[in-house]
Amino acid sequence: MHDLLIKSALFVTCDRNHKIVYDGTMAIRNGRITALEPSDSDAAGQLQAHKTISAKGRLVMPGLINMHCHAGDSLFRGLVEGLTLESWLRRVWIAEKAILTPQTTYLGSVLGLAENLLAGATTVMDMFWYPNETVRAANDLGMRLSTGGIFFDLPGIGDRMHVNYIKEAETFMATHQESETIFPAILPHGSYTVSPEHLEDAKAISDRYGALFSTHAAETQAEQSDISNRYGKSVIRHLEAHDLLGPRSILAHCVHVDKTEIKMMADSGTIVAHNPMSNLKLGSGIAPVYEMLDAGINVTLGTDGAISGNDLDMWLTMRLAASLTKGVMMRADVVTAKQVLHMATLNGAEALGQSKNLGSLELGKAADFIVLDLNSIHAVPMFDPINHLVYSTSKSDVRDVFVDGKQIVRDGKATKVNMDQTIENVRALAPSIKASLE
Amino acid sequence: MHDLLIKSALFVTCDRNHKIVYDGTMAIRNGRITALEPSDSDAAGQLQAHKTISAKGRLVMPGLINMHCHAGDSLFRGLVEGLTLESWLRRVWIAEKAILTPQTTYLGSVLGLAENLLAGATTVMDMFWYPNETVRAANDLGMRLSTGGIFFDLPGIGDRMHVNYIKEAETFMATHQESETIFPAILPHGSYTVSPEHLEDAKAISDRYGALFSTHAAETQAEQSDISNRYGKSVIRHLEAHDLLGPRSILAHCVHVDKTEIKMMADSGTIVAHNPMSNLKLGSGIAPVYEMLDAGINVTLGTDGAISGNDLDMWLTMRLAASLTKGVMMRADVVTAKQVLHMATLNGAEALGQSKNLGSLELGKAADFIVLDLNSIHAVPMFDPINHLVYSTSKSDVRDVFVDGKQIVRDGKATKVNMDQTIENVRALAPSIKASLE
Repeated sequence: MHDLLIKSALFVTCDRNHKIVYDGTMAIRNGRITALEPSDSDAAGQLQAHKTISAKGRLVMPGLINMHCHAGDSLFRGLVEGLTLESWLRRVWIAEKAILTPQTTYLGSVLGLAENLLAGATTVMDMFWYPNETVRAANDLGMRLSTGGIFFDLPGIGDRMHVNYIKEAETFMATHQESETIFPAILPHGSYTVSPEHLEDAKAISDRYGALFSTHAAETQAEQSDISNRYGKSVIRHLEAHDLLGPRSILAHCVHVDKTEIKMMADSGTIVAHNPMSNLKLGSGIAPVYEMLDAGINVTLGTDGAISGNDLDMWLTMRLAASLTKGVMMRADVVTAKQVLHMATLNGAEALGQSKNLGSLELGKAADFIVLDLNSIHAVPMFDPINHLVYSTSKSDVRDVFVDGKQIVRDGKATKVNMDQTIENVRALAPSIKASLE
Repeated sequence: MHDLLIKSALFVTCDRNHKIVYDGTMAIRNGRITALEPSDSDAAGQLQAHKTISAKGRLVMPGLINMHCHAGDSLFRGLVEGLTLESWLRRVWIAEKAILTPQTTYLGSVLGLAENLLAGATTVMDMFWYPNETVRAANDLGMRLSTGGIFFDLPGIGDRMHVNYIKEAETFMATHQESETIFPAILPHGSYTVSPEHLEDAKAISDRYGALFSTHAAETQAEQSDISNRYGKSVIRHLEAHDLLGPRSILAHCVHVDKTEIKMMADSGTIVAHNPMSNLKLGSGIAPVYEMLDAGINVTLGTDGAISGNDLDMWLTMRLAASLTKGVMMRADVVTAKQVLHMATLNGAEALGQSKNLGSLELGKAADFIVLDLNSIHAVPMFDPINHLVYSTSKSDVRDVFVDGKQIVRDGKATKVNMDQTIENVRALAPSIKASLE
C-alpha cells in the first residue's frame, strides 16, 4: 500500500534522458517515489494507495532548485535602484545593518522562501545573516535549504569578528550534518570582502566536514580590478591559488571569466550558480554560459536576492538563461531548453551532493515535485513539454507543491505558514526600512 | 452623474510627469476619464456615479500598448525551435500555409489577442494574414487594434498577387479610417520580402490616408547582408532612400542599426518597436535601446508573435527592455523604469497617433485601464510603484481590464469570449498543426 498516487498527469521527469510520461501515475511511500508508470499499464492499474489525486490536464515535474539566493533580502525589494554592484552594496549594507535582527531576518526569510516555494522551488541555497533564522523559516514552510555560516571581514550585522564567524559556522555544521532537509554549507561572502587567510579558514571547515562551500565570484569588472590590484590575480585565479576551487565549491555569478579560468573551473569540478536577472539589472554583465557548458562545468541557476533582481522566479531565470546567450552569440541553437531545465533541477541536486535524492522524478528519490496548470492561455498549444517549461511557463502556473511527499502548497497557497500575516508584518516594517536610507 | 467610479486605488497615470495618486478616485462617463482626484479631497467626495468599484489595495494604470504582434501565430507557439530568423521563417511559412484559413486565423487571433488582454494590453498593433479576422477577434474581445493590409512578394497564404494586396489594403483603409477602436495601417512584411517598388506602392496608400506604416527592419545580420547585396545599402538606408522613414513609420526590431542610421531615424521621427524576447530567442541580437532613446527616437515595445517569443507578455517585455541594456553596457543607470513604463504606454499611443486618447490616465482620455493585485508575494514590500511595475509585476497580477469604460476582463477572465471553448478548439487543431511540418 502506497501513501499517495498522482494519477493521469503529464510527467516531465528531468532524469538524465529527459524521460517524459505523457499520461502517467506516480506512487509515493514514506516520502519516496515508489513507482512511475504509464496510466494504462498493468503496473499502474495495480497501484493502491491511501490517497489518490487526479492530476489530469496537469504537468508534474521535480521541484526546482535555486542555487543562489538571499531570501531575507526580500525585505528590501526595490529599495536600492539604478546602481551597479559596488555602490549598490554600500547602500544595501546600511539598510541591512539598520533593520536586520534575528526576528526581522526570520520575517524576510519566510517572505523570500515562500516566494521561491510558490514559484515551484523546493530547495534553495541561501547566504544570509542569522542562518538559523532562515533554517527556521524553511522548516516552517516545509522546504529544503542549504545554508550555513557566513564570513565577512567588513563590519557586518552585529559587528561579529572572524573568530565568531568560525565558531558559528562550526556549530551550524555540527548541528545539521546529518539532516535530510538542511544541507550545511560554508559561505564566505566574496574574495573582495574576505581576506585570503579567512577564506582558507572557511574552506578548512568545509573540508573537515566534506561540506559545501559557496561564495560570490567574478561578478563585476570592478571586482576583477579590485582583486587584481590587491593580489595580482583575477578572481578565479586568486581562488585557485588558495585552493578554493573544487567539486564542493559553488561560485555565484562568474560573469567575468576567461577561457583559462573556465578550464580551471571545469578541471577542478567547480560549480557555477548563474544569476542572469541580477547580473543584468546591476549592470554586472552577461555570463558566458555557452562556454561554461561547453567546457563541462556544472552550471546551475539562481535568482539572487529580491533586492537585486526584484523577484525570486526560477521560470524567469530559466528563460533568461536559455535566451540571453542566443542573443549575445546571435545563434538560436546554443543553450538548449533541455540543458536549461537540467540547470534548474538535476544540476542543482548534483551541486548539492544530493543527486541520489533530488532533482528528478526517479524511483527511490524523494517525492519533491510540483504540479503545474496546463490550462492557462500561454500553455496552448503545447507541442513539446520541455520547451513549454523553459519558454512559456509562468510562476502562476504552479498550483501544488510537495516535499518529501507532503503537500506544502495547495492551489497556489502555502499550507503551513499564514502568508497574509507575513505580508502584513512586512508592510508594518516597510516604513522603517525606507527610513533606513533617508 | 458619472457612469463609474474606481475608488481607493493607487493610480499610476503614466502621464508625461509620471504623476501618481496614492489613494485616488477616478470617474468615467461615456467611456472617458472625467475625474481623477485624491480620495480624501472635496472633489472626490462630490463624485457620484451609477456604479462604484472599490479598488483598495490595487493599482490602476493605463492599458498596455503592444506595438508589434502576430496574434494569429499563437497557433504555432513552440512549433519551430532552435533556429535563427531566416531558417526559422522558412519553416513557419510552411506551417502557416498548411493551416491558415480565415477560420483558423480568427481562432489564432482570439487566442493571441486574449493572451495580450489577460496580461493587460488593451491595444495591439498586429501584422498578419487575413487582417479582417484579427479585427473580428479584437471586436469580439472588446480590444483596440491597429492592423491592415500586408504586402509580401513571396508566395503567401492564398497565393495572392501584389495587385490583390493593394486592393485589400485600400479596402481595409477605407473601411476603418473613421474607427476609434481599429487603427488602420499598411503593413509590408519587410525589405527582404517586398521589392522597393512594392514598398513604395504600400507607402503611397499610407500617405494618401495619412495612415500608419509598419514593417520589419534590421532584425538580423543576415538581413543586413541580404539587403546590402541586393541594393548596396543597409536596411535603414535602403528604407530612407525609398522615403519610407517618417513619423508614421513604425519599424519593428532595429537590432542592427549604426549611429548614422539612428540619427536618420531620429531626424525623420521614425518610431521603433523593440521586441527583446523575440530578438534574444531567435538569436537576432540585442537592440541598442540606450542609443535610440538618447537620440530622441520614440521607442515602443512589442512582444512579437508567440511563435518566436513563445508568449505575449508585455511585463516580461518591459523587464527585458529595462534590464538588457544595463547588462550589455554594464551600467545600472541606463534605460530607467520610468522610460520603460512610457515605452509600454504613452509612447505606443504617440506612435499610433492616439496620444490625445490613449496611453495615460488623464482627463478626457479614453477609460482604457487595468487593475492590478498588490497582494501577491512579489509585490511586498513596494517602495516605488513604477519600479514595481517594471521589475516585479507579473501578468498574473492583472485582475480587471476596462476599455472605453467597459469591463472586458473580470478577475482574470475575459468577459466577452468563451476562452475555454477557444482553448478546446486550438487543441483540436494542434495535431494538424504539428503534422504540417512532419
